[in-house]
Amino acid sequence: MTPLEGLDYAGVAVFAATGALSASRKQLDLIGFGFLAAVTGIGGGTIRDLILGDVPVFWVEKPAYLVVCVAVAAIVYFTVHLVESRYRLLIWLDAIGLAAFAVMGAAKGLALTGSPIVAVVTGMMTATFGGILRDLLSGEPSVLMRPEIYVSAALLGSAFFIAASLLGAPLIVGSGLGVIAAFALRGGAIRYGWAFSPYRSRAGRPPEDVL
Amino acid sequence: MTPLEGLDYAGVAVFAATGALSASRKQLDLIGFGFLAAVTGIGGGTIRDLILGDVPVFWVEKPAYLVVCVAVAAIVYFTVHLVESRYRLLIWLDAIGLAAFAVMGAAKGLALTGSPIVAVVTGMMTATFGGILRDLLSGEPSVLMRPEIYVSAALLGSAFFIAASLLGAPLIVGSGLGVIAAFALRGGAIRYGWAFSPYRSRAGRPPEDVL
Amino acid sequence: MTPLEGLDYAGVAVFAATGALSASRKQLDLIGFGFLAAVTGIGGGTIRDLILGDVPVFWVEKPAYLVVCVAVAAIVYFTVHLVESRYRLLIWLDAIGLAAFAVMGAAKGLALTGSPIVAVVTGMMTATFGGILRDLLSGEPSVLMRPEIYVSAALLGSAFFIAASLLGAPLIVGSGLGVIAAFALRGGAIRYGWAFSPYRSRAGRPPEDVL
Repeated sequence: MTPLEGLDYAGVAVFAATGALSASRKQLDLIGFGFLAAVTGIGGGTIRDLILGDVPVFWVEKPAYLVVCVAVAAIVYFTVHLVESRYRLLIWLDAIGLAAFAVMGAAKGLALTGSPIVAVVTGMMTATFGGILRDLLSGEPSVLMRPEIYVSAALLGSAFFIAASLLGAPLIVGSGLGVIAAFALRGGAIRYGWAFSPYRSRAGRPPEDVL
Repeated sequence: MTPLEGLDYAGVAVFAATGALSASRKQLDLIGFGFLAAVTGIGGGTIRDLILGDVPVFWVEKPAYLVVCVAVAAIVYFTVHLVESRYRLLIWLDAIGLAAFAVMGAAKGLALTGSPIVAVVTGMMTATFGGILRDLLSGEPSVLMRPEIYVSAALLGSAFFIAASLLGAPLIVGSGLGVIAAFALRGGAIRYGWAFSPYRSRAGRPPEDVL
Repeated sequence: MTPLEGLDYAGVAVFAATGALSASRKQLDLIGFGFLAAVTGIGGGTIRDLILGDVPVFWVEKPAYLVVCVAVAAIVYFTVHLVESRYRLLIWLDAIGLAAFAVMGAAKGLALTGSPIVAVVTGMMTATFGGILRDLLSGEPSVLMRPEIYVSAALLGSAFFIAASLLGAPLIVGSGLGVIAAFALRGGAIRYGWAFSPYRSRAGRPPEDVL
């Protein structure tokens, strides 16, 4: 298993765990856990592969990814009562998955297109869309809409990896730098509420007050 | 028309009807009925085809599927006032569509990939994503998040069909078994509230109470 | 640059601006503006390309589209405080984008499939899905679910363009007619509340009152 494959399985597993935690918050049954775990774990990578035209998508080629999601869902199902705050665990696992997928998605985008801009975008997409799907399906407010830094952390991790690759750094170094940068920024945002202050902004009024 | 094609058209038609019923609940106009009917009717199969790499997707090859959706939308538009409970009708038609697509999606997945695991997943996906898209677009609480059995019924239908196929049963027998199994389980869940009890679960607190 | 390419860039730019305006209403940071601008600007075209099997999708081939989205997001970020009603501006820009993409999406669908029915549908899809993704991600009530005419305007624009093409009109004439028709209908709906009256409809009851 290459470092990037390891990163990919790790990302799938932690995102699957966030999906299962979300299922637990909604009091779904075991199959519901598995479904939401799979959508979250493989959702970002699926959209990445579709957009890059790399079909059938990765988990059709290697169903082991599905097995990982189902196994993680079962583990969460039988141990989640031991967890004091499921949402806090969800948010931290999401940060690990974000960091892993920002690098993995950028690496795949660069390998398939050769374009650094596209690679940074596929990195951000892979890192964020699994969580977006999870929140949409489970009816949670999207993690994207919270005030602290989120998408920016994925951007930073992808950009670090791509910059290191273009500068000729070994894969393991570039991957490590990207993962650490993304996780550090997102982790700081969770722990200390880091946020870029919005510029002269005010919240929107409801549509019916405007039209 | 083969049995599987018949199942496919039937699934598209009943899911289109659920989309139109959802449009009626939101008091949309005739075009809105057609739009939501089409998204619901062909949405699950579209995602299935994209993931399997079978593009252009099925309704681009055979626009007759679109005609079915629009015709169903028009029928619902002009007869829906005769229905006492649109939501109850929607839920039962959704159950029929779920059963038809669980088998149809599994059959296509097995034919294109040869992998039973992938086939069960494409069956579940085809059966559930049309309804998920319908609920997301119309702003209804997702049918997936209700306590009674839903995804499990799709899983059962797909698994029965795949098991029968692997055991060498004729297509018509395997399809029939899969459809009946999925519909019986989902129907029982609607009628009698069947649910797997969640394991030591409690509902999640809102994010702002946790972070 | 051909007229259709110009229409495409114009559509991407105005939809990106609506995404950035939505980000401002949610008080996101600059990166959040860029993300929502890109999803809205290229979302509809991405789904169109996936369904038509034209992958890698357009912005992977021409990353200039991404640069447009980011530039528009930055402009909105630094000037949005000058705008009195962001939602009204959003709705009008959305109408321009709807008109541009209805024609552009229909043109691409016709070129790739040769089927007028499919082309009208890809036109409607390209015109509406960027806004649907924007509203889903930002948690706004979907523009699709408002009582005034929306999808119908996209349908009209696509149909005018396809009819003109089939009748042998020059591209520039058909495009112009399609854009004007779609924008006029949607603009009238915004300005004067034009709506097709729904047929004997009443709003749906919540699911828990029915089941």
